[in-house]
Amino acid sequence: MNNLVAFFTFTLLVSLSDQAIELDFCVGDTTLPRGPKGFACKDPANVTTDDFVFTGFRHESFTANLFRSNVTLGFVDNFPALNGLGISMARLDFAVGGVIPVHSHRTSEVIIVTRGSIIAGFIDATNNAFYRRLEVGDVMIFPQTMLHFQINVGRTPATAIVSLNGANPAVQFTTTSLFAGNLPAHIAQQITLLSQDEVMRMKRLFGTA
Amino acid sequence: MNNLVAFFTFTLLVSLSDQAIELDFCVGDTTLPRGPKGFACKDPANVTTDDFVFTGFRHESFTANLFRSNVTLGFVDNFPALNGLGISMARLDFAVGGVIPVHSHRTSEVIIVTRGSIIAGFIDATNNAFYRRLEVGDVMIFPQTMLHFQINVGRTPATAIVSLNGANPAVQFTTTSLFAGNLPAHIAQQITLLSQDEVMRMKRLFGTA
Amino acid sequence: MNNLVAFFTFTLLVSLSDQAIELDFCVGDTTLPRGPKGFACKDPANVTTDDFVFTGFRHESFTANLFRSNVTLGFVDNFPALNGLGISMARLDFAVGGVIPVHSHRTSEVIIVTRGSIIAGFIDATNNAFYRRLEVGDVMIFPQTMLHFQINVGRTPATAIVSLNGANPAVQFTTTSLFAGNLPAHIAQQITLLSQDEVMRMKRLFGTA
Amino acid sequence: MNNLVAFFTFTLLVSLSDQAIELDFCVGDTTLPRGPKGFACKDPANVTTDDFVFTGFRHESFTANLFRSNVTLGFVDNFPALNGLGISMARLDFAVGGVIPVHSHRTSEVIIVTRGSIIAGFIDATNNAFYRRLEVGDVMIFPQTMLHFQINVGRTPATAIVSLNGANPAVQFTTTSLFAGNLPAHIAQQITLLSQDEVMRMKRLFGTA
Amino acid sequence: MNNLVAFFTFTLLVSLSDQAIELDFCVGDTTLPRGPKGFACKDPANVTTDDFVFTGFRHESFTANLFRSNVTLGFVDNFPALNGLGISMARLDFAVGGVIPVHSHRTSEVIIVTRGSIIAGFIDATNNAFYRRLEVGDVMIFPQTMLHFQINVGRTPATAIVSLNGANPAVQFTTTSLFAGNLPAHIAQQITLLSQDEVMRMKRLFGTA
Amino acid sequence: MNNLVAFFTFTLLVSLSDQAIELDFCVGDTTLPRGPKGFACKDPANVTTDDFVFTGFRHESFTANLFRSNVTLGFVDNFPALNGLGISMARLDFAVGGVIPVHSHRTSEVIIVTRGSIIAGFIDATNNAFYRRLEVGDVMIFPQTMLHFQINVGRTPATAIVSLNGANPAVQFTTTSLFAGNLPAHIAQQITLLSQDEVMRMKRLFGTA
Repeated sequence: MNNLVAFFTFTLLVSLSDQAIELDFCVGDTTLPRGPKGFACKDPANVTTDDFVFTGFRHESFTANLFRSNVTLGFVDNFPALNGLGISMARLDFAVGGVIPVHSHRTSEVIIVTRGSIIAGFIDATNNAFYRRLEVGDVMIFPQTMLHFQINVGRTPATAIVSLNGANPAVQFTTTSLFAGNLPAHIAQQITLLSQDEVMRMKRLFGTA
Repeated sequence: MNNLVAFFTFTLLVSLSDQAIELDFCVGDTTLPRGPKGFACKDPANVTTDDFVFTGFRHESFTANLFRSNVTLGFVDNFPALNGLGISMARLDFAVGGVIPVHSHRTSEVIIVTRGSIIAGFIDATNNAFYRRLEVGDVMIFPQTMLHFQINVGRTPATAIVSLNGANPAVQFTTTSLFAGNLPAHIAQQITLLSQDEVMRMKRLFGTA
Repeated sequence: MNNLVAFFTFTLLVSLSDQAIELDFCVGDTTLPRGPKGFACKDPANVTTDDFVFTGFRHESFTANLFRSNVTLGFVDNFPALNGLGISMARLDFAVGGVIPVHSHRTSEVIIVTRGSIIAGFIDATNNAFYRRLEVGDVMIFPQTMLHFQINVGRTPATAIVSLNGANPAVQFTTTSLFAGNLPAHIAQQITLLSQDEVMRMKRLFGTA
Repeated sequence: MNNLVAFFTFTLLVSLSDQAIELDFCVGDTTLPRGPKGFACKDPANVTTDDFVFTGFRHESFTANLFRSNVTLGFVDNFPALNGLGISMARLDFAVGGVIPVHSHRTSEVIIVTRGSIIAGFIDATNNAFYRRLEVGDVMIFPQTMLHFQINVGRTPATAIVSLNGANPAVQFTTTSLFAGNLPAHIAQQITLLSQDEVMRMKRLFGTA
Repeated sequence: MNNLVAFFTFTLLVSLSDQAIELDFCVGDTTLPRGPKGFACKDPANVTTDDFVFTGFRHESFTANLFRSNVTLGFVDNFPALNGLGISMARLDFAVGGVIPVHSHRTSEVIIVTRGSIIAGFIDATNNAFYRRLEVGDVMIFPQTMLHFQINVGRTPATAIVSLNGANPAVQFTTTSLFAGNLPAHIAQQITLLSQDEVMRMKRLFGTA
Repeated sequence: MNNLVAFFTFTLLVSLSDQAIELDFCVGDTTLPRGPKGFACKDPANVTTDDFVFTGFRHESFTANLFRSNVTLGFVDNFPALNGLGISMARLDFAVGGVIPVHSHRTSEVIIVTRGSIIAGFIDATNNAFYRRLEVGDVMIFPQTMLHFQINVGRTPATAIVSLNGANPAVQFTTTSLFAGNLPAHIAQQITLLSQDEVMRMKRLFGTA
C-alpha cells in the first residue's frame, strides 16, 4: 500500500469510530429538534454538492400585494447548508413603486442593486435617517437591529440582493408587527401614539380589526 | 523576605513592564476614541471602587412628557465600568397610565417589576404578540431585537428594573424613529402604509412637520 | 420498544410541526438532551406568554442556614425561555447579618439593592478587593470570573436582584467547593495552605469529614 | 417646549457629555491605530449617508493578468462603514476562461452569479471536493476556512457577487502564498511534495525565483 | 439536619427536576446527532474523571509515510470532554527530515517543541512568510486560517505539542486537498497554475490519477 | 507641548504608514491604550518573525517559595503576538512536593505533563472534585472558570505545559485573593466561614495582618 495514503487516511479512520461526522460544515437536518445555535447536522455521508447550492433566486418570484414587492429568502430553512455558518441571502423584487416596508433584524445587512434604482435607508437610535438613491451595482450597509427600508423610485421594476450575517435573521416588519397580528388595537395605539382611527384603519387593511 | 510574597508578586513585576494594565476589568476611558467593542481602558492605577458602583437609580427621575414615563440608563456612557463586560441596567418609572413606547435593541432584556403593576409584552417576527400583566417581583424576558413595550395599568405609579446583555444597547423607539427625526414624511408614509394625514399629525406632535 | 428509536421518532414528530420555526426565541425543551450552548427548542406552536414570565421572585424564599441568606435562581433550568438568550436573574435575600459567601461564575453580574443595606465587593487577580456599602437603588458590577460576595450590614433584612449575562451561569462557592464535596482533606490543605485542623473543622461543618 | 421632545432628547443630553459617540455604527477611522476587532470609530458627528454607501462595484474593473479574472473588494479598508459589523462584499469579474485561483479566508462566503456561467467549488478537510456549474441567480456557500475556487466555463465574461461574514476577511491565495512571496523554494518544495523543477517554474512565473 | 447542607443543596434539588444536567462541562455524547457548536452532552451522572483525562499522547505514534511525520489528535472526536470548551491539543512526531506539510485550520495554534529542532512558519495573506528554527521549549503562534508548516531540521527525531482554540479544528492539508481527493486534474491545474504533468505526477503519488 | 495632542499626533503618524494593514495578525502595541478586546496593533511594517516566537519557556525558571512551584506566563503581556488570537501558554515547574494552589480563570485550560508526575484536578459548581494522577504525556482539561489545582506527587521535580483559550486569562489564586491583598480580615472571615484565628494566621503568612 502507498505510504502516503496511509498517512492521510488516519483522519478517516478516526472519523469512522465517530460516525464520520465532520464540522467543516453542518448541513441542517430539519427533521431533528432545533437548538439556539441552529439545527443538528445532517449525516455527512448523505451530503452532496446539491446541499451547498441554492437556486431559489433564479427567477423573479412575484406575488401581487399591497407593497408591490417580494422578498425571496435564502435563509437556513430553505437552504440548510447555511446552518451554523452565520450568513444568508435574500432576493428583493420591486414592481414600479414597490416598497420593502420598514423592518429590522438581529444581523447586519449589505444590499447590492442588480436592476433598476431604489432609495434605501436606515434610521439610527437617535432618530437620524440615512437614505440614498442607489443605482445598479451600488452597495449599502444597514447596521444590526436598525430600522431600514427600500423603495423602488425608478420607472422600471427593480431587483436587489441582500446578504445578512446570520443563517436565520429575523425579519420583523414594523407595520405588520403592530397591526397584522394579535396585538390588541388599544395597546397598539398606546405604544405608538397613533390615533384610534388610524390603528383601526390599519387593522382593517390586514384583516385583523 | 517572605517567600510567599516573592511567589505572588511575579505578576506584579510582569505588569510593571506593561504599564500595570489588567483586563479583569476595563473601565472605559471616555476621553479616548471608541472602538466597535467599546472604549479603551482607563489606567487601572486610577480605578477605584467608585468606578464599579452606580447610584443613578436611587431616586425616581421623572420628566413630564406625553408618555408619562421615564427611562434612566445605566449603560456604559453613564457607568463606564460596564465597558467590555456585556451587561447593563436601566430604571423605568411610570406615572399612572405611563407607557414605554414600542422599541427594540440589539440585546435581550429581562425586566423585574419593583413597584405597581404593568403590562409588558413583545411581538415576534411572525406578528405574534406575547403580553401579560406583571405584578411586583414578576420577571419577563424580551428576546434580542424583538419589538417590546410596557404600560402602567395600575392605579399607582410603577417602577421596573431592566437588565440587558450589552454594555451599550441601542434603544430604538419606533415612533420617534419614524416621526421625530429627519425622515421625510413621504418616505415615512410609504414604508408604513400609514395615511398622509396621520404621518403629518405625528410629525407635528414631535415638531418635525 | 427501543429507547433510541423512541427518541428519534419523537424528534421526527417535532420536526413535522417545526417547518416554520423561527428563532426569535428558543424556549428550552428540558426533556431533550442538552448541548454546550443550551437546550433544544420547545415546539414554538406550544409556546405561550407563560413561558416568557417568571414569578419565582415574588416572595422572599428563605431557609434557615448558617449563612442566613438565600439565593433564588431565575436561570434557564427554572426559566427555560432564557435558553439561548444569554441573560438571567437571581434574587438574594439576607437575614440580619446574612452573607452570600465568596463565589464566582463564568458571566459578569450587576446587582441592585431593593431593600436594606449591604456591603458588596469583588477581588481581582492582583488580590485587590473593591468593596462598598450599597443602599437601596445602588448598582454594582462584578466582572466575569472574579471572586465576589455580599454581606447584609444593615439592621434589617435585605434583598437584592442580580442579573448575569448568561442563561446558565455556574455559581461556584469557594468554601463549599473546597470542603463540602468529595475533595480529600489533605488535598484541600495543600492547595490552600490552610491548617489541617481548620480544614477538618470546615469539613465537619459540612458533614464531609 | 414640547414635552415629547423633552422626553426623547434625554439620550442626546447624555451623549453630549460622552462626545456624542453612538455605537449603532462605528464607521472606521482609518487614521487611528487598528485593534484586533477593527478600527476606532470616526466621530459620529462627521458621519453622513455617503459613509454607508459603496459605489466601487458599479463597473467591471478589469486588469489583464495570468488568471484573467479580477476581484474588487468591498472590505473595511475600502468601505469603512463595515467596521465592527461583521459583513463585507466583493465583486468577481471573469474574462472568458478566467479563474479565481484556489484560496481560503477566515469567514464563510456566499456567492451569487449575476452574469455568465461558472464552476464554483470547495474542498473539505477530508479532501472531498464539492463543485458545480452555476448559472445566473444561483447561489453557493463556501464554509469558513475551506479551500475554494471559481472558473468561468461559459462562452462570455462572467460576474459574481460574494458576501462574507467578516468586515475584513483575509483572502489567502494558495499559489501566491507558496510561490509569489519570500518563502524559499526548498521549503515550498518540502511542504508540498512538488518537484524542484515545478517550484522553480512557479517562482519564475511570479518573478521570485 | 445541618443548616449549611440545606443551603448548599438547593442547587442539587433544582437539578434533579432538570435531569441533573450541569454545564460546567458538556462531555460530548458522540452517539447523539452533532450540532454546529458540538455534540449534545453526555449525562453528567455518568461523567467520571476518566472523561477529563486523555492519554493518547503518552507514546510516539508513528506510521512510516512519505512525509516521515505523524499527527496524533486530541480533538473532540477522541477526547469528548473538550466539547463546547473551545480548546484542543495535538502531538506532532517527526522522523529525521520529517515534515508536516502546509495546512490551515479555522483556529489559531500555539506550538511548543519538546524534542529536537524544527523550522516552523506561516504565510500571511500578503504572501509574507514568517519562519524560524525552534529549539526545545520554544513557542510559536500560527494565526487563525493562515497556511503554516513544520520541518524537522535537526539530526534527531523531533516532537512538538500544539494547542488550538477550538475543540474540533479542521486540518486542511493543501497538497492532499488538491491531489488526493476527487478534485479533477484539469480543475486542480486551472486553480493552481501548476503544469498538467505536475498535477498528474501528484495525483499518481496519491493514487488518484 | 500638550500630552493629549502628542498622543493623537503619534496615532496619526502610525496611521499614515498603516494604510495596508491586514489583520491576519495584530501584534499588540503595548505602548498604546488597551481596549476590552486587547491592544491596538503594532504597525505590520515593523513586525518580524521574532514577534511570533516566544523563548521564555526554554529553561526552568524557579524561585524558592512556600508553594515550591513556579508559573511562567506566555500571555499577551509577555508575548504580544497573541493579541486578538485567543490563545496562550504557560509553563509550570514544581519542586518535589510543589503545588500550584487552587485558582480559576476566565478561559478553559488544557495541561500536558512533560516531566515527573502530578495530581491535577478541578471542582465543579456542585462541589464535585475530579482529580487524577497524571504521568508524562497525559493531558487533562479544566473547564472555564472552575477551581483547579496541580500537585507534584512524584519523587522528582515536575514540569507541565498548559494552554488556555484566551490571550490574557486572569489567574485568580483563591488563597492570595482572600488573604494576601487588601480584603479586611473580618470580611474574609464572614465570606468563608473560616475561623478568625485561621484568617489571621493566613494574613500573617502573607504579611497583610
